[in-house]
Amino acid sequence: MSKPAVANSLQDIISHAKEYGFVFPSSEIYDGLQAVYDYGQNGVELKNNLKAAWWKAMTQLHDNIVGIDAAIFMHPLTWKASGHVDGFNDPMIDNKDSKKRYRADQLLEGKAEELEKAGETEKAKVLLAEMGRLLGAEDLAGVRDLIISEGIKCPISGTSNWTDVRQFNLMFSTQVGSVAEESSLIYLRPETAQGIFVNFLNVQKTGRMKVPFGIAQIGKAFRNEIVARQFTFRMREFEQMEMQFFVRPGTEMEWYKAWKETRLKFHKAVGLPTERLKYHDHEKLAHYANAAVDIEYEFPFGFREIEGIHSRTDFDLRNHQELSKKKQQYFDADLDENGKPYGNYIPYVVETSVGADRLFLATFCEAFTKETVGDGENEKERVYLKLHPALAPIKAAVLPLVKKDGLAEKAEAIANSLKSSFRTVYDEGGAIGKRYTRQDLIGTPFCIAVDYQTMEDETVTIRHRDSMEQERVHISELKEKIGYAVSMERILEVI
Amino acid sequence: MSKPAVANSLQDIISHAKEYGFVFPSSEIYDGLQAVYDYGQNGVELKNNLKAAWWKAMTQLHDNIVGIDAAIFMHPLTWKASGHVDGFNDPMIDNKDSKKRYRADQLLEGKAEELEKAGETEKAKVLLAEMGRLLGAEDLAGVRDLIISEGIKCPISGTSNWTDVRQFNLMFSTQVGSVAEESSLIYLRPETAQGIFVNFLNVQKTGRMKVPFGIAQIGKAFRNEIVARQFTFRMREFEQMEMQFFVRPGTEMEWYKAWKETRLKFHKAVGLPTERLKYHDHEKLAHYANAAVDIEYEFPFGFREIEGIHSRTDFDLRNHQELSKKKQQYFDADLDENGKPYGNYIPYVVETSVGADRLFLATFCEAFTKETVGDGENEKERVYLKLHPALAPIKAAVLPLVKKDGLAEKAEAIANSLKSSFRTVYDEGGAIGKRYTRQDLIGTPFCIAVDYQTMEDETVTIRHRDSMEQERVHISELKEKIGYAVSMERILEVI
Repeated sequence: MSKPAVANSLQDIISHAKEYGFVFPSSEIYDGLQAVYDYGQNGVELKNNLKAAWWKAMTQLHDNIVGIDAAIFMHPLTWKASGHVDGFNDPMIDNKDSKKRYRADQLLEGKAEELEKAGETEKAKVLLAEMGRLLGAEDLAGVRDLIISEGIKCPISGTSNWTDVRQFNLMFSTQVGSVAEESSLIYLRPETAQGIFVNFLNVQKTGRMKVPFGIAQIGKAFRNEIVARQFTFRMREFEQMEMQFFVRPGTEMEWYKAWKETRLKFHKAVGLPTERLKYHDHEKLAHYANAAVDIEYEFPFGFREIEGIHSRTDFDLRNHQELSKKKQQYFDADLDENGKPYGNYIPYVVETSVGADRLFLATFCEAFTKETVGDGENEKERVYLKLHPALAPIKAAVLPLVKKDGLAEKAEAIANSLKSSFRTVYDEGGAIGKRYTRQDLIGTPFCIAVDYQTMEDETVTIRHRDSMEQERVHISELKEKIGYAVSMERILEVI
Repeated sequence: MSKPAVANSLQDIISHAKEYGFVFPSSEIYDGLQAVYDYGQNGVELKNNLKAAWWKAMTQLHDNIVGIDAAIFMHPLTWKASGHVDGFNDPMIDNKDSKKRYRADQLLEGKAEELEKAGETEKAKVLLAEMGRLLGAEDLAGVRDLIISEGIKCPISGTSNWTDVRQFNLMFSTQVGSVAEESSLIYLRPETAQGIFVNFLNVQKTGRMKVPFGIAQIGKAFRNEIVARQFTFRMREFEQMEMQFFVRPGTEMEWYKAWKETRLKFHKAVGLPTERLKYHDHEKLAHYANAAVDIEYEFPFGFREIEGIHSRTDFDLRNHQELSKKKQQYFDADLDENGKPYGNYIPYVVETSVGADRLFLATFCEAFTKETVGDGENEKERVYLKLHPALAPIKAAVLPLVKKDGLAEKAEAIANSLKSSFRTVYDEGGAIGKRYTRQDLIGTPFCIAVDYQTMEDETVTIRHRDSMEQERVHISELKEKIGYAVSMERILEVI
């Protein structure tokens, strides 16, 4: 009946997201705010459902993982300990003629791409290697020299009149307290992870947690990205779903491998297919990690990270211990090979970190389906969102075939009877085919049609979104039948 | 069996919240950040459940209310239109000797309280009236004169060496973009409402909404409060649950009354009793309102606002229209008394705005129960959290009577079988009485005990938190029986 889906462009995705209330540009009436987006009436439901799926998968399925919700505002020393005050920088360079600012590394990468396109692959490689060496050595003057010696020009002014390269910290800062002597500079957190680390002992003690155990958190983080792009993929305000798993030192690689597998299963369970997911091992590791892998999804703009899994050693807890002078230790009463307790140690950490907005975008891209249906003269294009029923913004729409003869009242009564169980809407406007299409476009898995037969025998048809097949059921079966199909348990059961 | 609960102090509440993983001071290892708190492993679940109850009550129960999730970052003109740039101020005064800063109105209110305590009620009234007049006229020099003529001294330095009174804006600001010419000052939103107003037409059009309709949102807001206090009641970072209901001008008072009633029902449904809830009508209205009422709950520190219901007229939409030059109109096709369509207008707005952290605190205070149980020698104090089962952080705990003879394995298997339906934990540590107490302290409504009889006939006992009564049921009944009791539907059904 249906022909294979065709590849969708990012532009199609963005248009559909806007037109059907999933994602709006932020403050659009004031011509928008760059790299910030708002979730519309359907987007917020999809995103909340994804967050709930992750939260339940983490905390409800694991006795040894609990959640927290730490504030965005944290004591500024937190970011000193984490290394963000000193090291969370991008190298920036300004063109003196155009007054435009660029990321120095991206100028050089652009040049390398040009070389590559021109067939000079070897030159491109050498350039990137040299850039890596200079940045690694923090030789910013060297980076500037390289930009000049490569003849890189500002695309606006067309000149090579460059300033020095300077490091630019990506954290947003603000003043807390009044402007008097008590005020102090604080940062908007650039990651949620530190909110977990500083609460490690609070949770371990009050929750009587035993290593290995995890702490999960969902929350906003902020980065003053210079070049933000690809729709909601890289935003200045974004949401993370992070879990820090505390383990006995020496066991971290086992857990790292286990979480790598578990997390991939999750992404499959929410509807991302095996062939568009892959691991990307980090060859160059961050200073705090001894192993790191990304789970990537194939967006319309290529494979990109949706989740990172990192073995972070005891880097964070040790630094917090040093700076706060508060012991960040755990006493492990389990016995080692010699029959003695493992005793006190700073746990090692395996982190799993999902970009909630990226997972949203991946799920949305994956669900967006264009199909050609029908044959010959009846051939037409059909667009729908193939979302997992547990993730769909609206679970069921109740539609009277016509407005007269009591069908509308009957349909409304059915909608009302389902409402406290799952999100159900009632729609009486327009031909029934149009109403089906409306629900298809926002991913509603079930349409319940009320017709003349309903008035006689209390049966309705359930029309299934993906197959468009219709099924006749008794009204009394609806709550359980649809309730089960749209429940989060359906996702949790397969993780 | 149990004697009446005694009144609890805020200190008891704060201690319990910390000790059992509900609320921790933020960044505690760095000695905390004033007026900011983190939710612990049990607090986050209770808060998330309250948020879910509100969200479902708003969007799921009403076909004509949808949600959104607008970003914290908004275009700065938003706050010009809303009046926050020019008018969201507190009058501040510094003592030159101690260098301490105070809110001028709070110094005067403190003085009035002193007078009241000294029996000089009339003088106190006159003072407050005069202060109101001066602040209303923005006569800041007059406010300073009043502070001096009343002989108010700084509690630190003991002197009256005061600076001028100045207005201090409560919005936090930060720089977005790089530090170059493109960067601009933006604010952390001081309320979520404006994210709804600027998206009014986006939602109305893409959602095909017809007036009257509402847009709901849950999200963080930030205010640089000078004097933050009373635990999580007044924080610098807090969460709002707001719904803006768009109506035809002239019908706003009907809707205002209707929402006033509906919202009170909600608070009762989540467990706040009638006798500790009251309305507080605003006599002095904000410049944008033509009617306003608070729903107050009786905290240990007195009746205080947990929700505001405001008839905001077309103040916000009209100002956004003026500043953005984008029409914020709705075409109403319904027919008036003369049979003509109402036509184009800027809708009026009735707002319902809950402080999520305040509702959390109210629910927590209300649930916190100290009882004397037993008689004579067996008399002892019992502490438990009487939370609505749908709000409790953990729904069920499965406890083997002893660890041997296969009881532990059986209990763990039962816990695992319930886990994908609702949050269930397994606990084998310590005497069963202690384990019941542990669950009481965090509000778990059901404890499932596995004993020798279980091994014979597949029955367990359910121990009910509030009554401590025990009930014998078959294992196969657990999922449905507890699942129903803890489901959010139980709250939605009574709103």
